[in-house]
Amino acid sequence: MSDPLASWNDSAVKVAILDFVSAVNDPHGRNFVPPPERIAVFDNDGTLWCEQPVQVQVLFALARAQQLAKADPSLKARQPFKAFLERDMKAIHAMGRKGVFEFAFAIHAGMSVEDFGAVAKDWFATARHPVLHRPCAETAYRPQLELLAYLRTNGFKTFIVSGGGADFVRAFAEDLYGIPPEQVIGSTVKTRFDAEHGRCELMKLNELNSFNDREVKAQNIGLHIGRRPIMAVGNSDGDMAMMRYTLSGPGRRLALLLHHDDAVRETAYDREFRLSPLSEALDRAREFGFTLVSMKNDWRIVFPEAP
Amino acid sequence: MSDPLASWNDSAVKVAILDFVSAVNDPHGRNFVPPPERIAVFDNDGTLWCEQPVQVQVLFALARAQQLAKADPSLKARQPFKAFLERDMKAIHAMGRKGVFEFAFAIHAGMSVEDFGAVAKDWFATARHPVLHRPCAETAYRPQLELLAYLRTNGFKTFIVSGGGADFVRAFAEDLYGIPPEQVIGSTVKTRFDAEHGRCELMKLNELNSFNDREVKAQNIGLHIGRRPIMAVGNSDGDMAMMRYTLSGPGRRLALLLHHDDAVRETAYDREFRLSPLSEALDRAREFGFTLVSMKNDWRIVFPEAP
Repeated sequence: MSDPLASWNDSAVKVAILDFVSAVNDPHGRNFVPPPERIAVFDNDGTLWCEQPVQVQVLFALARAQQLAKADPSLKARQPFKAFLERDMKAIHAMGRKGVFEFAFAIHAGMSVEDFGAVAKDWFATARHPVLHRPCAETAYRPQLELLAYLRTNGFKTFIVSGGGADFVRAFAEDLYGIPPEQVIGSTVKTRFDAEHGRCELMKLNELNSFNDREVKAQNIGLHIGRRPIMAVGNSDGDMAMMRYTLSGPGRRLALLLHHDDAVRETAYDREFRLSPLSEALDRAREFGFTLVSMKNDWRIVFPEAP
Repeated sequence: MSDPLASWNDSAVKVAILDFVSAVNDPHGRNFVPPPERIAVFDNDGTLWCEQPVQVQVLFALARAQQLAKADPSLKARQPFKAFLERDMKAIHAMGRKGVFEFAFAIHAGMSVEDFGAVAKDWFATARHPVLHRPCAETAYRPQLELLAYLRTNGFKTFIVSGGGADFVRAFAEDLYGIPPEQVIGSTVKTRFDAEHGRCELMKLNELNSFNDREVKAQNIGLHIGRRPIMAVGNSDGDMAMMRYTLSGPGRRLALLLHHDDAVRETAYDREFRLSPLSEALDRAREFGFTLVSMKNDWRIVFPEAP
């Protein structure tokens, strides 16, 4: 049988994953978990795909900002448009994760959810990563794509629990990760139900509904899934609450914390990344029972080969 | 082959259902819908099971009110406790759907989501319907159980979109309807993430998060599912928005509106039911393209036989 996690090195982490899945899957073992309860949650940016030096949703917002500035050149002088149009990453990251997403929401307000999805899908189809010089879809980590497939083969239901916009992530998660829209939890705006034009639409408002970060990730797991996951994978302090929530149920549990320590094949970063730092989760990983994944040591391959 | 909808009479409605499912399932037809897009949403109270003369969640709230009154007898004189303890259905229904659920929420505040789920499961295991004289689980409509199973056999993913509390419905939906917690959308309270006692818990607050009725049902479909359903089933004006939302997408669609017109086998009611009236949806059914289901004429059997 071929190795389902071929892009993972044969290190202790890989053994821990295989052992966990085998334990919950053994109907005669005391750690057996019935398939409907095999819920695994994954952060997206920095966990399933690359977020350095720029998150893909920031690129998407940038494209939209350029479009708007074409129609109204006065925007070029206004912040935060200016920062986005000039690709001033320092200024963008200084806005913080919430600020960036609020801007991304604001510039898409007034569209229907479906129109937004179509625009995002279109954009994504040709979007290229400016530093990795490849389609954005190919910035997904091969070891994680293998992990998702391996879990599903073993009866798991995989969810994304992202700080990114749910409607944005839904535009590509099904094709890229095999995760359908109803299994994507993310940040959201409120919508208005519009039935006035013959056709009923959900219109995106410029009003935050949920910023899916930190404790809110655990709360939204309760709201959307209604069942405590048995596995969680993250890469920043924003994932700590959902990882701790996952681990504090009964029976076997697994929480993986990806550490970006590979300056050669990707980017080495943690505490200093203002948009989404990894600091407390790293310091308290042992205390909380997180299994540290070193990109450098535990991943044999990071990205799929260029075609 | 045995009839998958054996409890439905061979009327035009049954033909419409079979025809719809066959059309979206025909890979060579122009109405084919890929399985991941075959989303069907069902209201619960009055659609999947009986809500007369009392909704099951009202019985559950009543049991909890009795428990609380035992600990604090002064509650007996206070409204709305008094109405619940005296089973004064007129007073309870006068509170309106939202008022009833707010009371149900209030008396469960301070519990963790998981403790609440365990309590609801325990209660449900022995709960009997006071008028139908059978377990509450057996107040589910046999034709609808068949319809759910038939849809799933044909690649549909079935969701509940209920005005009832999501955590309450999740306590029985998996066993009763084969619908897992993550496919249950309902009314919800806000929660607090509690990590202070060694174990992380989501604590139910006495603060409404979402009252899942009317337009909110469509909005919550956008939030939770992120994809427009192709089929919707309801029985009241509260289901109108999600049914219209479902119908106004492209391609083949089906929206069933169940009319409780069977005074012999169940209860005949519509406009006058204060908790959840059926009035505008009935008057405008043709205009909106709803397919009316007459319990009296379209259902051969309503409830499973008593064992």
